[in-house]
Amino acid sequence: MPVIDLAGCPVKTGSIYPEPYATMMAGRSSLRLGDAGGLTQFGVNLVTLQPGALSSLRHWHMAEDEFVMVTLGECVLVQDAGETVMRAGDCAAFPAGDPDGHHFLNRSGSVAQFLVVGSKAPREVATYSDVDLRIEIKAGRARFTYKDGTNWAGVRDEP
Amino acid sequence: MPVIDLAGCPVKTGSIYPEPYATMMAGRSSLRLGDAGGLTQFGVNLVTLQPGALSSLRHWHMAEDEFVMVTLGECVLVQDAGETVMRAGDCAAFPAGDPDGHHFLNRSGSVAQFLVVGSKAPREVATYSDVDLRIEIKAGRARFTYKDGTNWAGVRDEP
Repeated sequence: MPVIDLAGCPVKTGSIYPEPYATMMAGRSSLRLGDAGGLTQFGVNLVTLQPGALSSLRHWHMAEDEFVMVTLGECVLVQDAGETVMRAGDCAAFPAGDPDGHHFLNRSGSVAQFLVVGSKAPREVATYSDVDLRIEIKAGRARFTYKDGTNWAGVRDEP
Repeated sequence: MPVIDLAGCPVKTGSIYPEPYATMMAGRSSLRLGDAGGLTQFGVNLVTLQPGALSSLRHWHMAEDEFVMVTLGECVLVQDAGETVMRAGDCAAFPAGDPDGHHFLNRSGSVAQFLVVGSKAPREVATYSDVDLRIEIKAGRARFTYKDGTNWAGVRDEP
């Protein structure tokens, strides 16, 4: 049955980020709608942000296109140039390779939700704009590094 | 700027279907949100169905995954097994290669909208479940055929 049972979809919480970044993702959860519907060619997640939560560290993708539609409440999109308030129905696109990092904050007093779609590149690097961190994903395996490519081993002063 | 100006996005109407099928798409329009946002790896359209309109001929994709979220009003999803009413927030997934054709009808008295995401396969065949028609898309060029693969040249009795 192609209609996705949102109520029966496992709620994913937590983060694969190393600390102290994982803890910063408290209040964020998501439903893997694409997986639930048997899709393999792109990812579709419905992300819920409790008041005060953020969607991710601010980042950009080397190889993967990303699309977001806010579906509930209000999210603040943060990029290099500043902030944009987005409300239900507002959409944003982040083409692969554009180094202007983004994330979404819920600064409101109510729950916010957005749908996010991302392609699945065989090799991907996401770079986190505001900290010395990036993630390399290759054949489904993820590795965190500093921005100079060496393995991540805890927060350090910028080299 | 990644936020998409929906009000400034060109409204696409009409259909590439041959007649008499193109005329059946009256009352359907769409915004090419992915294109407007500079995405190339998957397509994202916001489809509006006036009362009585249908989203497409009922079809299935050989090579492309498809995802739909209803964002406004009420749509009736039609498949082999029958009908399912979907309302704003409801989602459905159609994995590539599943031959259970689908489309959406707006049987309500109000405008309905849905977001649809589809991958972009280098070669795609969509087969229309209820008529003797299919479309082959290769390197961006589309060709309509009967289901036996011969070039389409008007509605004919089933062979």
